[in-house]
Amino acid sequence: MVFFLHVELPSGVVNFVFGVGPRAGQALVTHPEVNVISFTGSTQTGYHIKKATSHLSVKLSLEMGGKNAGIIFNDVDLAKCIPVLLRSCFLNSGQVCLCTSRLYVQRGIYDEFLQKFLPEVRKLKVGDPFDENTKMGPVVSKEHKEKIEKYLELARQNGHEIVSGGEMDPNVKSTKKGYYIMPTVILNVDDRSKLMTEEIFGPVVCIVPFDTEDEAIERANSVQYGLCGCIWTENIGRAHRLATRMECGTVWINSWLIRDLRMPFGGVKDSGIGREGYPYSEEVFTEVKTVCINVA
Amino acid sequence: MVFFLHVELPSGVVNFVFGVGPRAGQALVTHPEVNVISFTGSTQTGYHIKKATSHLSVKLSLEMGGKNAGIIFNDVDLAKCIPVLLRSCFLNSGQVCLCTSRLYVQRGIYDEFLQKFLPEVRKLKVGDPFDENTKMGPVVSKEHKEKIEKYLELARQNGHEIVSGGEMDPNVKSTKKGYYIMPTVILNVDDRSKLMTEEIFGPVVCIVPFDTEDEAIERANSVQYGLCGCIWTENIGRAHRLATRMECGTVWINSWLIRDLRMPFGGVKDSGIGREGYPYSEEVFTEVKTVCINVA
Amino acid sequence: MVFFLHVELPSGVVNFVFGVGPRAGQALVTHPEVNVISFTGSTQTGYHIKKATSHLSVKLSLEMGGKNAGIIFNDVDLAKCIPVLLRSCFLNSGQVCLCTSRLYVQRGIYDEFLQKFLPEVRKLKVGDPFDENTKMGPVVSKEHKEKIEKYLELARQNGHEIVSGGEMDPNVKSTKKGYYIMPTVILNVDDRSKLMTEEIFGPVVCIVPFDTEDEAIERANSVQYGLCGCIWTENIGRAHRLATRMECGTVWINSWLIRDLRMPFGGVKDSGIGREGYPYSEEVFTEVKTVCINVA
Amino acid sequence: MVFFLHVELPSGVVNFVFGVGPRAGQALVTHPEVNVISFTGSTQTGYHIKKATSHLSVKLSLEMGGKNAGIIFNDVDLAKCIPVLLRSCFLNSGQVCLCTSRLYVQRGIYDEFLQKFLPEVRKLKVGDPFDENTKMGPVVSKEHKEKIEKYLELARQNGHEIVSGGEMDPNVKSTKKGYYIMPTVILNVDDRSKLMTEEIFGPVVCIVPFDTEDEAIERANSVQYGLCGCIWTENIGRAHRLATRMECGTVWINSWLIRDLRMPFGGVKDSGIGREGYPYSEEVFTEVKTVCINVA
Repeated sequence: MVFFLHVELPSGVVNFVFGVGPRAGQALVTHPEVNVISFTGSTQTGYHIKKATSHLSVKLSLEMGGKNAGIIFNDVDLAKCIPVLLRSCFLNSGQVCLCTSRLYVQRGIYDEFLQKFLPEVRKLKVGDPFDENTKMGPVVSKEHKEKIEKYLELARQNGHEIVSGGEMDPNVKSTKKGYYIMPTVILNVDDRSKLMTEEIFGPVVCIVPFDTEDEAIERANSVQYGLCGCIWTENIGRAHRLATRMECGTVWINSWLIRDLRMPFGGVKDSGIGREGYPYSEEVFTEVKTVCINVA
Repeated sequence: MVFFLHVELPSGVVNFVFGVGPRAGQALVTHPEVNVISFTGSTQTGYHIKKATSHLSVKLSLEMGGKNAGIIFNDVDLAKCIPVLLRSCFLNSGQVCLCTSRLYVQRGIYDEFLQKFLPEVRKLKVGDPFDENTKMGPVVSKEHKEKIEKYLELARQNGHEIVSGGEMDPNVKSTKKGYYIMPTVILNVDDRSKLMTEEIFGPVVCIVPFDTEDEAIERANSVQYGLCGCIWTENIGRAHRLATRMECGTVWINSWLIRDLRMPFGGVKDSGIGREGYPYSEEVFTEVKTVCINVA
Repeated sequence: MVFFLHVELPSGVVNFVFGVGPRAGQALVTHPEVNVISFTGSTQTGYHIKKATSHLSVKLSLEMGGKNAGIIFNDVDLAKCIPVLLRSCFLNSGQVCLCTSRLYVQRGIYDEFLQKFLPEVRKLKVGDPFDENTKMGPVVSKEHKEKIEKYLELARQNGHEIVSGGEMDPNVKSTKKGYYIMPTVILNVDDRSKLMTEEIFGPVVCIVPFDTEDEAIERANSVQYGLCGCIWTENIGRAHRLATRMECGTVWINSWLIRDLRMPFGGVKDSGIGREGYPYSEEVFTEVKTVCINVA
Repeated sequence: MVFFLHVELPSGVVNFVFGVGPRAGQALVTHPEVNVISFTGSTQTGYHIKKATSHLSVKLSLEMGGKNAGIIFNDVDLAKCIPVLLRSCFLNSGQVCLCTSRLYVQRGIYDEFLQKFLPEVRKLKVGDPFDENTKMGPVVSKEHKEKIEKYLELARQNGHEIVSGGEMDPNVKSTKKGYYIMPTVILNVDDRSKLMTEEIFGPVVCIVPFDTEDEAIERANSVQYGLCGCIWTENIGRAHRLATRMECGTVWINSWLIRDLRMPFGGVKDSGIGREGYPYSEEVFTEVKTVCINVA
C-alpha cells in the first residue's frame, strides 16, 4: 500500500536553521517567544536545554539517549534472534539511539549464544558505506571515535574481555578514510561499570549472563536511561510480565526497530519526557482551552 | 443529583506531608525517586521548582498564579454582570488564583459601569468570616497584608485613583482581629504598571476603559500570566472570537468560576504547564508505553 | 494551505458497482458476507435497507433525508443572512439533503424578511447549468419533477400562498431542455401540512412566522427528520440554548454548509443512524475486540 | 482497594418494568418515544427486536448468544488449564452467555486431555445450590431442561459419544427438586452438527481434536456466533495471531471470564451489535452533535 500525505504550508511556517548548539541552539531555546521545544539528541544536551529554559514558560518534549537492554531467554530460536540482534547492536555503527548495547542472555543458552553470535559479528564487513557489500561504516567524527576508544580502553584496564572488535582490521585501516571502530563485543562486565551504564553510541555491546526473570528485569532497569528494550522469549506470560516491568518507552518483543509513526515514541527517566507521534504529541504542541458559556 | 465516588486506597499510597516550602517542599521536589510533581501555588514557587528539578527526570504539572482580565462590552446587561464581577474580584478577599483583577470596560458603558459597580463594592460587608452577614473577611497573614499595602502605596505614589477601599474602615479596625484590606478599586492605571501586570492576590481590582475588540484582547493578553479570563458580551461572534484569542487556560463567557472536575484546568505562559482534571491530567500522571510484538 | 492524502489501496479493495436499487442495491445489502453498510440516500430507501437486513448481523450507518429548519430571530443582520439562506434553500435546486426547507422567521422582522428575500428569489437566474450566469438548473428527472409538482398542487389545493416560483417561466420553458422547477416560496402553511413535514427535495421553501424562542424550537423539532438546521441570531445565550435543543445532527449558527471532513456528520430520528467523518465513523467500520491475557 | 461510585438519580429516571417479552418487552421496544434499546438476551429475541424496530429510528445495542470455542494447544500446562475450563464449561450449569461449549484440543494432547478432564467433570457435585458442597445446580426451568434434552437426544441419534453426563444420577433425581442436567461431554461431533453450531445454554460441551493452528481457528470461526473465545497456549506469537483472527468480541488467553467494567463487552456476527462498558457504550447512548458557529 502506497500512502502519503501532502501538505503545503504557507511560506515561513517551517524554517530550518543550521548552526551549532552553543550558538544557534542556545539562541533558539532561550528565545522568549518560543513556546514549545521538541528536541532529539543526547541526554546531556537535553538536560542543558531543560536548565537553560527553567525560567521560561516553554513546553518541552525531549527525546534523549538510551542504554537499551536486550533480554534473551533460554526458549528462543537463536536462528531468528541473532540476525535481528546483529542489526540492533551494530546498525549505523551503533549510532542509533534505539540500538541495543546491553545483552542479558539466560545462562542455559549463554555459551551457545556466544558461539553463534560472535562469528556473525566477525563476519560483518566493515568499510566504505558506498560499497554494496559493506555492512558497517565509520563513526561520525574523529572526536566521536576517540570517545568510543576511551570506553574500550576502560574495558581493557578493568580486565573485561573484548572478544571481538576493538582494534580496526589493519587492512581496512590502510585503505579506507573515515573513523572506523570494529564491531565490538565485551564480556564479563559488571552492571555498575560505565560500559554498562553510559551511552557509548558506537558499535559496542556488552553481553552478560543471567539466571532468573526477576534478576534480568531488575538489572535491565538498573540504569538511568529508559528509552527502549527488547525481550526475546516464546512464552506469552513472561513476555507480557516483562514488557510491563521494563522501565522504558518502547518494548520490542522478539523484534527490534519496528516503527510506525502512529506508535507513541519517547523515553522515561533520563531518556526523555513526552511522546512523539500523533495523537500522543498533541499534548505538547497544543494548549487545551476550556471555554465555558453561560446560556441562561 | 447526588454523586460521589468512594475509593479506599491501600494505606501509605497517599501521604500528607506538612511543612514549609524551603524545607519540606524542597526535600520532596528534589528527591531522586520522585517521578511526578503536581504543584499548585505561586508562579514564583513554581519556577523555583522548575529550576530546582531541571537536572532531574521528573514530570511537572504546574498550576501557578494569574492576573486575570475581565472584558465587558457595551452590550451587556449590567444587572446580570455586576453581581458576578463582585464575586470574581473579591471572593475570599481576592485570594483565589482565578479572581479577576483587571477589568476592561468598553467606553460606551464605562461611566455607567462605575456608577453601578462602585456602590456595590462599598456595600460589601467586611468583617468576621463567622458572621453570617459578612461578605469579605481578612487576608491570610500580616506579611500578605503588607505585600498588598505596598501595591496600594505604589498606586498612591503614581497618582492612580483609588476610588474605593484601600483604607480599612476604622470601626472594623478597632473591633476585629485579623489582617483586613477593604475591597479596593483603582482607576486610571497604565497597562504597564505593576498594578496591572503583577499578581496582588488581594481584594484589589483595576478598572480601565477600552474602545475596540482588538484593543481589548491585546491589552488583556499583554501580561505574562495566562490562567483565565472572563468575557461579557451578548454577541455570539465576538464572544467566540475573543475566547479563541484570549491567551489563557479557561475563558468564562458571561460567567465566572463555573467549575466541573471534568473540565481541563490549568494555565499558559507564566500561569502554568499542564492541565488538571481527568482525562487531561492522565498525560502527566502516566507514561505511555509502546509494546510491539512480533507474531510471525 | 494545500493538503491532500494519497493512498494506493490494493486492487480489488474498493469496487464501484453501478446499478439500480431494487436489483444491485438489494443484492448487495442482503448478501450474507456483507458486514457493514454505509448508506446515503432517502429515508425511504434507508428504512428499506434496515428492514431488508433486520435478520442479518450487519452494521448500518444511514445518512438519510431531512426537512431542515432555519430559525431567524429579530436581531439578525438580514444583509448577511439572506444571501446564505438563498443558497441553503435553492442550492442544486434544493436537491441537497442539507438544504433548508422550513424557515421560521420571528414576527418582528417577518414582513421585512419577505420584502428582502422574495425579490432575491425572483432574481435567481434559472437555466442551463453550463451557462455561467445560471444560478439554478433543472431537477434530476421527469419523475422527480412530477413528485415536486404534486407538492405544489397540494399547496394550491390547501390554499397556501405560493408567492414566488411554482410555474416555470414560459420563456425558459420553450428554450431549455431539462426538468425545471422555479425557485418556490410558500407562505401560510400549517406545521402539520405535508409541505412542512415531508422531504420535497426540490427548490421549495415554506416560510412561517413565530413569536418566542420556545415556540420556534418546538415547531422546528416537530418533524420526524433530524438531519441539520440553522439558527440566525446574534445572541450568544440563545444560539447555544437552541443549538442544544435542536434535534438534529448538525447545527449551523449564522451560517450554512460549512463542512470539514473531521466534523461528525449524520442525523437523528428519521434522518439517520451513525456519524460519518473520522474518528466518528470508526465505530461502524471497525469492531472493538477485548484481548485479555493471563500473565501469571 | 475498595472502590464504589454512588449516584442518586432523580426519581423516575430509572424504572424497572417486570413482564414477559411478548407483552412488556414488545410494548417497550416498539414504543415510538424510545430512542435507544440496550438488550441482553438470546439471539432469537435480539433479532426479533431488530425486526420489530426496523421501521423506527431507534438505536440498538444487542448482547446476544454465543457458541464459544476454546482452543487448547499441545504446549499448555493442563494442570492450570483444566480447572479454568471446568468453570468455563459448567458455571451456572452452562447458563452464562460466555460459557465455552466447543473445545478444540490439539491432537498431541487430546487423549491426555480427556483422561484428565473427564474425571474432573464426573467429580462435579450436582445438587441443591444452597448446599455448600454443590458445584452445579439445576437449569432454570422445565422448558429449558427439555430443550437441552432434545440436543442430547440428537447426539444419541447421530451416534455421537456422550462420555459423561446426559443422564441424571438417579440418587440425585429422587431426592432433589429442580430441573437437573448432569455435566455432559460429547465427543466425535461433526462441526456442522447443531450440537456444534447452536447455543444449547446448558452444561454441555463438545470436545474435538485438531491438528494445525489454521485449522483450529477456521473451525472455531465457522459458526454464526461471535461472542467470545479462549485460547490456551504458552506461545506468544500463536496466541496473538489467533487473538487477532478469532471472530468474536472478547478473547481470553490462558484464562476465562476475567471481567472489568472498563473492558469493552459485546459480540460480533449473531452475538451482537455494539459494545457495553464506558467509554465504548457512549456511542449508543448519546448522539454526537456538530455545532458550527460563524464568528466573522
